[in-house]
Amino acid sequence: MIKKIDHIGIAVHSLEESKSHYEETLGLKCLGEEEVESQKVKTAFFDVDGVHIELLEPTAPDSPIAKFLEKKGPGVHHIAFASDNIEGQLEQASSKGCKLINEKPIQGAGGKQVAFLHPKSTFGVLTEICSGGHCH
Amino acid sequence: MIKKIDHIGIAVHSLEESKSHYEETLGLKCLGEEEVESQKVKTAFFDVDGVHIELLEPTAPDSPIAKFLEKKGPGVHHIAFASDNIEGQLEQASSKGCKLINEKPIQGAGGKQVAFLHPKSTFGVLTEICSGGHCH
Repeated sequence: MIKKIDHIGIAVHSLEESKSHYEETLGLKCLGEEEVESQKVKTAFFDVDGVHIELLEPTAPDSPIAKFLEKKGPGVHHIAFASDNIEGQLEQASSKGCKLINEKPIQGAGGKQVAFLHPKSTFGVLTEICSGGHCH
Repeated sequence: MIKKIDHIGIAVHSLEESKSHYEETLGLKCLGEEEVESQKVKTAFFDVDGVHIELLEPTAPDSPIAKFLEKKGPGVHHIAFASDNIEGQLEQASSKGCKLINEKPIQGAGGKQVAFLHPKSTFGVLTEICSGGHCH
């Protein structure tokens, strides 16, 4: 069952430039930065009443975020929903004909379990399902 | 001050088709549907632990959502942050050089006050500031 929106992932060219927008223009507090090697991104994250805003800057030209930026420019990359039963959630999605990018959960940062649903099956929104707590 | 993410607006070609994804694939409950004449959209909305997912279907070819769909296809259209002081929030944004689509709050659905920041100033994310409570 989906419990909450865990985070919104936003593709940016530069963490430094875009961070200041969230900090100064919107007045949000940056909780920290982290490099996620498996995704080839650096992230800066903000908490907004329990939902994280995650800025994602590619660290390599073949990063999924680099490809996204090239094709679509900066903007919302994905929405992550926290589930209390990620495998059950994937089974439910699959049984309804939803194409899965990850048939089984994979390890995300911080030891969390994550899986993505294909945007072709989710009306254009790249959708992440993750285990409870904050997952990048 | 920003208190929470109020909603995520998602542009879709058809509420009927996309609703079933959120209901059946993700298991979320649709709270209702509403037509917002000023924006020329029909919306179906879902609650996820206090944050609304709003699906937005255009009702006219000159709807902002129709133009978005034509240019970018379906996907996340905007993120709305609830503020306890919308005018102060706009002043703060403007003082930091952020371009405002609405210099002053305008009436949204349900009598709420809303204003948009320009995506050119927000690193590609069309950003809505709204008064407390849920605003379409």
